[in-house]
Amino acid sequence: MQPTLKPAAEGLRTRVFQIIFESGTPLAKGFDIALIVAILASVGVVLLDSVVPLRVRFGELFYWLEWGFTGLFTLELAMRLYCLERPFRYLRSLYGVIDVIAILPTWLMLLLPGVQSLVVLRLLRVLRVFRVLRLMQFVGEGRLLLDALKRSVRQIFLFFFSIFIVVIIFASAMYLIESPEVGFTSIPQSIYWAIVSLTTVGYGDIVPVTPLGQAITVVLMLIGYSIIAVPTGVFSAQVIRSIREERYSEEACPGCGHDRHERRAKYCLLCGTWLDEETEDPRAWKDADRNDDAPAIDDT
Amino acid sequence: MQPTLKPAAEGLRTRVFQIIFESGTPLAKGFDIALIVAILASVGVVLLDSVVPLRVRFGELFYWLEWGFTGLFTLELAMRLYCLERPFRYLRSLYGVIDVIAILPTWLMLLLPGVQSLVVLRLLRVLRVFRVLRLMQFVGEGRLLLDALKRSVRQIFLFFFSIFIVVIIFASAMYLIESPEVGFTSIPQSIYWAIVSLTTVGYGDIVPVTPLGQAITVVLMLIGYSIIAVPTGVFSAQVIRSIREERYSEEACPGCGHDRHERRAKYCLLCGTWLDEETEDPRAWKDADRNDDAPAIDDT
Amino acid sequence: MQPTLKPAAEGLRTRVFQIIFESGTPLAKGFDIALIVAILASVGVVLLDSVVPLRVRFGELFYWLEWGFTGLFTLELAMRLYCLERPFRYLRSLYGVIDVIAILPTWLMLLLPGVQSLVVLRLLRVLRVFRVLRLMQFVGEGRLLLDALKRSVRQIFLFFFSIFIVVIIFASAMYLIESPEVGFTSIPQSIYWAIVSLTTVGYGDIVPVTPLGQAITVVLMLIGYSIIAVPTGVFSAQVIRSIREERYSEEACPGCGHDRHERRAKYCLLCGTWLDEETEDPRAWKDADRNDDAPAIDDT
Amino acid sequence: MQPTLKPAAEGLRTRVFQIIFESGTPLAKGFDIALIVAILASVGVVLLDSVVPLRVRFGELFYWLEWGFTGLFTLELAMRLYCLERPFRYLRSLYGVIDVIAILPTWLMLLLPGVQSLVVLRLLRVLRVFRVLRLMQFVGEGRLLLDALKRSVRQIFLFFFSIFIVVIIFASAMYLIESPEVGFTSIPQSIYWAIVSLTTVGYGDIVPVTPLGQAITVVLMLIGYSIIAVPTGVFSAQVIRSIREERYSEEACPGCGHDRHERRAKYCLLCGTWLDEETEDPRAWKDADRNDDAPAIDDT
Repeated sequence: MQPTLKPAAEGLRTRVFQIIFESGTPLAKGFDIALIVAILASVGVVLLDSVVPLRVRFGELFYWLEWGFTGLFTLELAMRLYCLERPFRYLRSLYGVIDVIAILPTWLMLLLPGVQSLVVLRLLRVLRVFRVLRLMQFVGEGRLLLDALKRSVRQIFLFFFSIFIVVIIFASAMYLIESPEVGFTSIPQSIYWAIVSLTTVGYGDIVPVTPLGQAITVVLMLIGYSIIAVPTGVFSAQVIRSIREERYSEEACPGCGHDRHERRAKYCLLCGTWLDEETEDPRAWKDADRNDDAPAIDDT
Repeated sequence: MQPTLKPAAEGLRTRVFQIIFESGTPLAKGFDIALIVAILASVGVVLLDSVVPLRVRFGELFYWLEWGFTGLFTLELAMRLYCLERPFRYLRSLYGVIDVIAILPTWLMLLLPGVQSLVVLRLLRVLRVFRVLRLMQFVGEGRLLLDALKRSVRQIFLFFFSIFIVVIIFASAMYLIESPEVGFTSIPQSIYWAIVSLTTVGYGDIVPVTPLGQAITVVLMLIGYSIIAVPTGVFSAQVIRSIREERYSEEACPGCGHDRHERRAKYCLLCGTWLDEETEDPRAWKDADRNDDAPAIDDT
Repeated sequence: MQPTLKPAAEGLRTRVFQIIFESGTPLAKGFDIALIVAILASVGVVLLDSVVPLRVRFGELFYWLEWGFTGLFTLELAMRLYCLERPFRYLRSLYGVIDVIAILPTWLMLLLPGVQSLVVLRLLRVLRVFRVLRLMQFVGEGRLLLDALKRSVRQIFLFFFSIFIVVIIFASAMYLIESPEVGFTSIPQSIYWAIVSLTTVGYGDIVPVTPLGQAITVVLMLIGYSIIAVPTGVFSAQVIRSIREERYSEEACPGCGHDRHERRAKYCLLCGTWLDEETEDPRAWKDADRNDDAPAIDDT
Repeated sequence: MQPTLKPAAEGLRTRVFQIIFESGTPLAKGFDIALIVAILASVGVVLLDSVVPLRVRFGELFYWLEWGFTGLFTLELAMRLYCLERPFRYLRSLYGVIDVIAILPTWLMLLLPGVQSLVVLRLLRVLRVFRVLRLMQFVGEGRLLLDALKRSVRQIFLFFFSIFIVVIIFASAMYLIESPEVGFTSIPQSIYWAIVSLTTVGYGDIVPVTPLGQAITVVLMLIGYSIIAVPTGVFSAQVIRSIREERYSEEACPGCGHDRHERRAKYCLLCGTWLDEETEDPRAWKDADRNDDAPAIDDT
């Protein structure tokens, strides 16, 4: 945890901290669920408010709901700041910034009425759901994926760079071959078309009409269709590797050299040798124990 | 098998049970095949009946075929219930519900003529095919896939949640940038467009027309094109792991009871006990050998 | 090789057989290359002949080229039959049928002029290229893929069956929700739309217009977008398994039990034990040899 | 490195060489970054210059910027040639050719004004970025991918050949079934449509309208949707194998010279020789031990 998350020492503040920052008690879990519901509901209101017929009919309702949610989130942020030792440091952390972004647009509308982009910014509230996911056990899964992504980041960069080169070359060729009348009005426009085709989206707003243009398009589409196998293959390999490394140690057995043991293994599965060289084999110890007795008899 | 599937004890009912619930005898196999043919044929009739020119010409034929299939399926359900000990419990099981859904719409049409949605419900008959697949050996394959799915369910949830965030952000941006005239009339409409683009479907009913909108679309399409590598990689890794799991024996270690050893394991990975009870532990044998000599000396 | 491919015993026929059925000599390789070129050129003529402006201008040329290629292929087939012991058996084999299909349409045009479908049948000539690929070393690669496909065939069947169920359900729902005016005129038409959407093709000839229809479409597109991970994962796993089995034996080392040796391995990589139990270890033999001699000399 | 890259022996030229050909010193790294910026900026100018409204307004500016970049790149090429021992050999190398292509179009415009295709050739400048990537550590990653590609090249060839056959067959069928009015004017045009559908691009400029055509299209789309699993699976398997290859040591066995052992191998898999030259073979040691004692006892 970040140092900003240490609660202030008093009783009430500590209890509030446990409810809104942790998720161990039933009350804290209830708070998490209520928070997710409130976030999704407030996002729903923003979405519906953008539909003209609904705004005409329910505009007033949406307006008051919006203020209700903003009030709730403001109260929640105030409580978060109240129960922390260093509230300002929290405000500068990632979660703090998201908390502020979630309420700022509505408050700013009081000052700058009619600025519609502010309305849309409220949708960033949805990012707050991540906080609750973190409390649940999704972090481990995410970390596995991030590990695999980090390992393939160079290949992914190379992949996008190759796509960039392919797109530039095909877009320039089509700009020369096809006429502006069918949509190839400039090289940037051709690049837009090339990416629409390469990614197999294929809106159909710009399509080739000359036989040569169609032939080149065929090559571009086949490239786009099959080249996706490259990042997929790389990422699959990295996920497999991450899962394997999580489970298998690569240290060799001192007895037979076998080097694919599950991490939890204490004995080699092939020759039964004790694997943890820093401690003693309890079985060996038992043997030794028996041996300790034996000599007494032996010597007789 | 579920307890509801115990046949009633008399001879005829047991024989009927063997034919319609099991698939061991040739007669039972013939019944299975006839059932699949009848289900698919009745689905075919529903499909063709929805085509206006065909309904105009063959409507009467379709009507009587439909009643024929409904009669058959009703008879079959009656026989199923007849040969079971607890027919009502079967009716509340998943397969029982599907059996009822398969015939209910047609019977209800007698009461509520002209309700077209009922006609469509008849297509749920197709679900009945699953019953026969279960009797064939497809369950094992399905279980392998379900195992892999269950293991990746958290990653898949994270994947869809990330898509949800990406879609919300791009949809709001496009709602601000593009005008309602070209189709971006509301945020929900923009979300529809964003998913059409991200999944690379690309109908082309709504397309960006401003340079900035096209630039943002390019980014969204590249995300959609490449992000599919993530669930593919995760699922590949899980299928590989499921196949490998077949390498694990479920026999418990006689020493400590641990029951997840690789099949090739000779010693328990936790307590080092020899696992193959039919042969002797070479290590133990060596010890024993030493012991065989020892007594001679001991006794002296 | 099939028994039909035994050449007739005389000298000339044997030499012709070696040229047109095998690919060991330079002449035979030249024949293979010339055959591929002729096949692709004749396919090219059929393609160009279907383009109206080109047919108007070069129709006569295409006509004579077509007869030229047909003559060549007829001559080739005659030679194949000439140098075989059982020509009629060859004609009934897969390759024989393809050879006949390659020339039949043109000859039939003499009898039935103006039947355009025959023209198109000539394109099946392209299948003849497979014969030459077989002679090159592509069979092994194909077999690996077929092995992996055979192993995943049940999962692939389950996959397509699930798609079938999904498509039926979404198509019926959309048939009820959307009006015939926008293209959802019948359930089969809705099924066509559902597959266009699920496979992420997205022509855009039929698109949902109601909010509910668009919401359902969003779900269908997300299913189609992500479900492809299933066959991809299954097939990846099977290819990996096929490659592994090709290289690694699973027999355990009699010395230490290690069971992941490359098939060509003669000694265990961990304990150095001789792996092939049916023959003797040359090293052991040498040692034994030395030992037999050694004492005699040593003792002297 | 290639022999052409040896710098001429004098002090100044050596220092220039270190800056523009290597990337060890801070100055050389700065040069690399400046070069990438200049390349991307000059590509940006070409792109913007193709947008009519921008060219009308900023045409003059773009013209002088273009000459500025060309001057810079010409100067850079001159410096490269100056500090090499064999400048002409460099000019014939891949990087040399790309360097010339980057500046030639602009110089040629002086001689052949108004030839627009030359303008587009300037975009090939973007290839120069590869040089700088090489200096960074992306070569290793690229090599891993190329290795995997090389290994799957036969399967990829088979894959594209199968697609070719599928496309030819479906395109001919659709040419017969659908009418020229809806776009199926010739077999090449049908092939264009078939590839648009198979790759799931789906522009929608040509769509089937007859029920039979739509049924065939459904099959084609399902093939295209699922067949991508084949190259993805093959490539995944090859990447995994390439990563695993890192497990192989390339040191030769001192006994038989075999040089492909798993890193963990202790004995040569072909001749059983002990591989780790720094320690002793426990087996040999035991034998030796036995031999040392043996004679003494044997002879008694």
